[in-house]
Amino acid sequence: MLCILQARLALRSLPVTELRCFASERSKGKILRFDGKEVKCEVLAPGCFQGIDIAFFDASDAISKEWSLQAAEAGAWVVDNAAVYRMEKDIPLVVPEVNGELVAAKVKENLKTKLPARGRVIAGPNCSTVQMVVALKPIRDRWGIRRVTVSTYQSVSGAGSAAMTELKQQVSEIIAGREKAPEQSAFSHRIAFNCIPQIGALKGDGFTSEELKLMDETRKILALPGLKISATAVRVPTLIGHAESVHVECERPFDLSEVREALRTQPGVLLQDDPEKGIYPMNVTFPGDPVEGAGGRDFVGVGRVRRDPSVENGLQLWVVSDNLRKGAALNAVQIGELIARHSS
Amino acid sequence: MLCILQARLALRSLPVTELRCFASERSKGKILRFDGKEVKCEVLAPGCFQGIDIAFFDASDAISKEWSLQAAEAGAWVVDNAAVYRMEKDIPLVVPEVNGELVAAKVKENLKTKLPARGRVIAGPNCSTVQMVVALKPIRDRWGIRRVTVSTYQSVSGAGSAAMTELKQQVSEIIAGREKAPEQSAFSHRIAFNCIPQIGALKGDGFTSEELKLMDETRKILALPGLKISATAVRVPTLIGHAESVHVECERPFDLSEVREALRTQPGVLLQDDPEKGIYPMNVTFPGDPVEGAGGRDFVGVGRVRRDPSVENGLQLWVVSDNLRKGAALNAVQIGELIARHSS
Repeated sequence: MLCILQARLALRSLPVTELRCFASERSKGKILRFDGKEVKCEVLAPGCFQGIDIAFFDASDAISKEWSLQAAEAGAWVVDNAAVYRMEKDIPLVVPEVNGELVAAKVKENLKTKLPARGRVIAGPNCSTVQMVVALKPIRDRWGIRRVTVSTYQSVSGAGSAAMTELKQQVSEIIAGREKAPEQSAFSHRIAFNCIPQIGALKGDGFTSEELKLMDETRKILALPGLKISATAVRVPTLIGHAESVHVECERPFDLSEVREALRTQPGVLLQDDPEKGIYPMNVTFPGDPVEGAGGRDFVGVGRVRRDPSVENGLQLWVVSDNLRKGAALNAVQIGELIARHSS
Repeated sequence: MLCILQARLALRSLPVTELRCFASERSKGKILRFDGKEVKCEVLAPGCFQGIDIAFFDASDAISKEWSLQAAEAGAWVVDNAAVYRMEKDIPLVVPEVNGELVAAKVKENLKTKLPARGRVIAGPNCSTVQMVVALKPIRDRWGIRRVTVSTYQSVSGAGSAAMTELKQQVSEIIAGREKAPEQSAFSHRIAFNCIPQIGALKGDGFTSEELKLMDETRKILALPGLKISATAVRVPTLIGHAESVHVECERPFDLSEVREALRTQPGVLLQDDPEKGIYPMNVTFPGDPVEGAGGRDFVGVGRVRRDPSVENGLQLWVVSDNLRKGAALNAVQIGELIARHSS
């Protein structure tokens, strides 16, 4: 059985005998469709996790904190997409294509001797981290990584569906020539036709929480605790899909064609790298892509692959993915698939 | 007297006795207003530059190539915003706040012994270069610069007014829910709600012409021919104003408060750096900014000033300016002001 909070994704190869959805009082009775059947939203309540095998948490930090260990104590595996457990030393932070073996190890350990509740929690990273580490994985494996710097171009859907409505509304009003400044609530500034160089609150040393997540989580997932890394996270007026301009300093010299081949064969990556023909990943890449962008796609697009001539063993990449899929829901479901596969 | 092609700017402190405007046959007779008077567009023709003191060229490379030396041969100073002369060794590439002394030197030389026509050509850089070098100048002066990497967030107005119309039109159609894919001609891909990681044609080593301009021109203007530099130029769906995420490796250690002070006192820079209060430069920064962004402002906004912890003496900046003003017209007029000042 399964508990999905705010599930938005068809469940791929995960064997689902029963799907249950839990949310707040506000969503009580809401009908979701899954696998041709209707699933009615239930309200989170003590004891609600009895009989659940895998509980996906895709909610706020506060909800995760309050409920996730209750699910684990009831015997479920918890896949948590909030920030609560990501940087906890004893909890794996997982992107299946990069470090899925950590899930397999936990499941095997649990089969041998039942783990305490906390031992059955697996964390999923922040959206902007997921796509970058998938692209960096084959580089790390083959040439080593000494330093990474990244500037992001993040869509408003990362701030929720209200933010998407806000961008569309602001844009409409501006184009219609209304004199009144458009209303804003999802962001601290107008987002229409604007780039806001702040995502999350300001934390230490002038970095935002989003930037620090990207830096800390990348170190943890790539298992490079000493990795030198710095980020600038910017909100741009796109609807779905995050893009990243990434500079990598490798430890060893590389051949560019081998880098492209390593990316081409990396599971989860789609190499889109023929810029002379206008081929590189974008929010809107393919004919027939949804107007809101990112195409509901499951892969991480990598392009503009070239040598960074300003440093030894330097590499530049342009990385784009659907922040709502690979950046969140899809990654969690992939973790669920690993749990299911190794449990049987 | 003056010849202005496609002038869009009030002429600040430049002493103008007569303004003449030249364009193609298409604009013949078009009326522009300057200093309360009407100026009728004339058509470029052999001999048209007689009596002109300073000729501003803000046209295509082809027009500059054909006409600019004719203006210089007729005795005018030429301020050229096209790419034709920028990287020519004998022609200064000038951003007045950074290397305005090159204009003064040329004017003095010309006063002593009249220079050949080519000696009276001064080039203005590409828009994305101008704003970055103004921000980097005080850093270079005080701490030295070893390496720069930059990712840009460039507005569509850099591709002309038709591109602005195209973005607005595409956005309207998408929001109105029209099924047909929006038309595109200014860019090779849809720009509405999309980021396009290509500006200009693909050139050597996987870089675009815009990226190479930014790299080569920065080296020349900062007089650092050996500067290690790399760029990624990206078109984002904003109307006016270019933003840049800049990483700098200084030669010597710095104190962050001294860096801020050096930026605060740098002519041409407005330090907007209080991110905890949401203060950083953006396309739309101030209440009352024009809806299209960048506020018709003359300064280069610098914010998000912080240490780059991933490298020794590393610094990160977020730099925004009005690409139509400081990035083009204003910079040319400032060069004109220098010519006028040193000629008298």
